[in-house]
Amino acid sequence: MQNKNIPRIVVARLPIYLETLELMQRQGIRKTSSKELGDRLGITAAQIRKDLSQFGEFGKQGTGYSIDKLVAELKRILNLNQIWDVAVIGSGRLGLAIAQYPEFIHRGFRITMIFDNDPKLIGTQVGDFVIQDGAQIVEIIKKSKVKIAILTVPANAAQQVAENLVKAGVQAILTYAPVMLNLPTDSVQVLHIDPIKQLQQMTFFLD
Amino acid sequence: MQNKNIPRIVVARLPIYLETLELMQRQGIRKTSSKELGDRLGITAAQIRKDLSQFGEFGKQGTGYSIDKLVAELKRILNLNQIWDVAVIGSGRLGLAIAQYPEFIHRGFRITMIFDNDPKLIGTQVGDFVIQDGAQIVEIIKKSKVKIAILTVPANAAQQVAENLVKAGVQAILTYAPVMLNLPTDSVQVLHIDPIKQLQQMTFFLD
Repeated sequence: MQNKNIPRIVVARLPIYLETLELMQRQGIRKTSSKELGDRLGITAAQIRKDLSQFGEFGKQGTGYSIDKLVAELKRILNLNQIWDVAVIGSGRLGLAIAQYPEFIHRGFRITMIFDNDPKLIGTQVGDFVIQDGAQIVEIIKKSKVKIAILTVPANAAQQVAENLVKAGVQAILTYAPVMLNLPTDSVQVLHIDPIKQLQQMTFFLD
Repeated sequence: MQNKNIPRIVVARLPIYLETLELMQRQGIRKTSSKELGDRLGITAAQIRKDLSQFGEFGKQGTGYSIDKLVAELKRILNLNQIWDVAVIGSGRLGLAIAQYPEFIHRGFRITMIFDNDPKLIGTQVGDFVIQDGAQIVEIIKKSKVKIAILTVPANAAQQVAENLVKAGVQAILTYAPVMLNLPTDSVQVLHIDPIKQLQQMTFFLD
């Protein structure tokens, strides 16, 4: 795993810029400015200029950015000039929803395998996938060289599965399990998806 | 909707503090410090003290925080001393996974209804729910006074459904649809869940 010297909070904004720029591309817009991009995103122009300046020089003062060029640069920076294979662990409703979500492939990711440890599910076909045996995660993933996994197992199984993923060489885990994972931070990145935390910050503003 | 004068980024950290403090409660820990909390979360102690100081005085210099008291205060600040009813819109795999996810009720939210506009699904029973007619969203939600909705409809339906939710009095929308919603920001908050953006920031660090 690369240890690049850019704050994570800056990296986290790049996919947001990319999404908006790709939307502008589809709308036929060719050029933009940090002001216009900022207005669309609710981020200051200065913040956008500062973020992008960490990676080089993408626009000329006063003439703005070529959207095509900036999209290409952001994809290069984010390592999105390739399709990344992804393993989904857990074939409950959420795991299956993710495995069959068509957006992934349009934005750089291909779900290539799904695992479960329920004997009733192992070997069954779901869409394009045959559910594989969770007990074989380490050997199958190691062999396939998959570097990214999405974890949808129950909270009490998540730590053990995550450790196996690290053993298998996985370097990035996106987890939906409502539990903190204790993993070596020098070999794997972990991000959580927690809809309840999002709801909890919105209730702050409710009457 | 209340317009409280606290930066959203600060509000967004409060549920993270709450989760960790509740975990410490379950571990039988009674007191903590901004240093210890920060170490668990990878946030500086100064940041935690500054965030909390926006809401009052919760600990004495040198003696730390009472975890029970801080949990109670955070719940009060986040309006989590009540259970919030939530409507799920869209009864695809993701909608059903959300509607039946047991964590919600433990953390302040109760899914009370689910809608779809597919005539084959309307009226069918799924778990504890009967799927209701999406064409009746405005009247049913208005009558029920539900203030929070989770949107799992396809991208091309999201804007129209979201507008209906606002008409029905919904003040907080958590959306999984991969599309920007254009809504009056003074009457509704919108947060997105986008697993692909999370993956895209992790690939930055991959070899």
